Amino acid sequence: MSDSAYRRDSAAFFEPTDRTRLQRYPGRARYERDAIYDVLDEALVCHMGFSVRSQPYVIPTLCARVDDQLYLHGSAASRALTAMTSLPRVCVTATILDGLVLSRSAFNHSVNYRSVVVIGSATLIADIGEKRRALEQFTNAIVVGRWDDVRPPTRQELKGTTILRIPLVEASLKSRSGGPTDPDEERELDAWAGVIPLSVRASEPIPDPTLREGIAVPRYVAAYVRNRS
Amino acid sequence: MSDSAYRRDSAAFFEPTDRTRLQRYPGRARYERDAIYDVLDEALVCHMGFSVRSQPYVIPTLCARVDDQLYLHGSAASRALTAMTSLPRVCVTATILDGLVLSRSAFNHSVNYRSVVVIGSATLIADIGEKRRALEQFTNAIVVGRWDDVRPPTRQELKGTTILRIPLVEASLKSRSGGPTDPDEERELDAWAGVIPLSVRASEPIPDPTLREGIAVPRYVAAYVRNRS
Repeated sequence: MSDSAYRRDSAAFFEPTDRTRLQRYPGRARYERDAIYDVLDEALVCHMGFSVRSQPYVIPTLCARVDDQLYLHGSAASRALTAMTSLPRVCVTATILDGLVLSRSAFNHSVNYRSVVVIGSATLIADIGEKRRALEQFTNAIVVGRWDDVRPPTRQELKGTTILRIPLVEASLKSRSGGPTDPDEERELDAWAGVIPLSVRASEPIPDPTLREGIAVPRYVAAYVRNRS
Repeated sequence: MSDSAYRRDSAAFFEPTDRTRLQRYPGRARYERDAIYDVLDEALVCHMGFSVRSQPYVIPTLCARVDDQLYLHGSAASRALTAMTSLPRVCVTATILDGLVLSRSAFNHSVNYRSVVVIGSATLIADIGEKRRALEQFTNAIVVGRWDDVRPPTRQELKGTTILRIPLVEASLKSRSGGPTDPDEERELDAWAGVIPLSVRASEPIPDPTLREGIAVPRYVAAYVRNRS
């Protein structure tokens, strides 16, 4: 953790609540703001949960963080927006898969992951300036540096963009890392055991067929792909 | 689509319902069983949604499909299990990110993805034989071929494993693919546009430090990594 730009006056730890305290595997829970923001910043896509007449729904959407606010891109579904903003508290979860954990027994197989659960009240942003800042963050969450290279949004586009804001006041991180945890007496079994690390791979950028001649792949796109190939 | 082993007597399409019909971008919705099962089979991790006293929660968990049943590994949280099985219908969502879509304008940026929403009633499995089949599927969902290479679960382990089953009767797939959709008049803009394909990368397997000497990386693990590196 180095360049997270959260406000330095916010507490370094989230206070666990009945909603964010883990019931199983409490040893896998963490509440450090730094670690939680790292996951939110890396995730790009999160899943938001809401209910309509007691029916739960889980919908994926883009997420981006600015300081202690989490922004969700609201193009998912209009019923999601209505439901998300009418509940006192919603739940948003971002999960990153880090590896496959192969134990010597079927029962002990697992995965390495980091998953952040955010509980909070969702508000539809009305202010055009805040919408612009959030859209800048979404664009740079896709590829860092992208915002400065593209046509900025018009006032009309910003009006037509629906963005939800959730203040980051209640959150937890659940994670697993490391190798298999076979009991000592199983180490003599005749099965390979270990971890297969997983990450996101980026492939060669595919230029738009209508791209004007002479426009090269930008440096920040090439760097993004190089770092993930 | 080739080797999905769903029962051939089930309909090739899911019937759209008020719960699974898309409200925005209906052109992005699909209901083919094949396409939906492909996403569920590829996803490994899904997000399940439930409510406790009107508070929505979204929790990641392992998923695996056998025929027309979706199995969820229940080690997530006990309140999840209680809540998931007490609701008439829950929601489970599996999302795969396929690429970043870079348009010439900030507003038109997007991502390519496939996301399946399953709505259904969740039941806790009691039958030991069904638990064993589900655990076999979970193990092979981690790496195909793994089940035959490890110590099978004992009766005691199966008793201690909580697995949820959701029959696949109501589901939809939402997806986006292809390049940016800038309007004609923006094609002359001085910005690169295109797609950065994303996928899951597997790195060199890390053997468990306590691995017995002389046990090589199995062929199916090497193949898994080779196909994703």
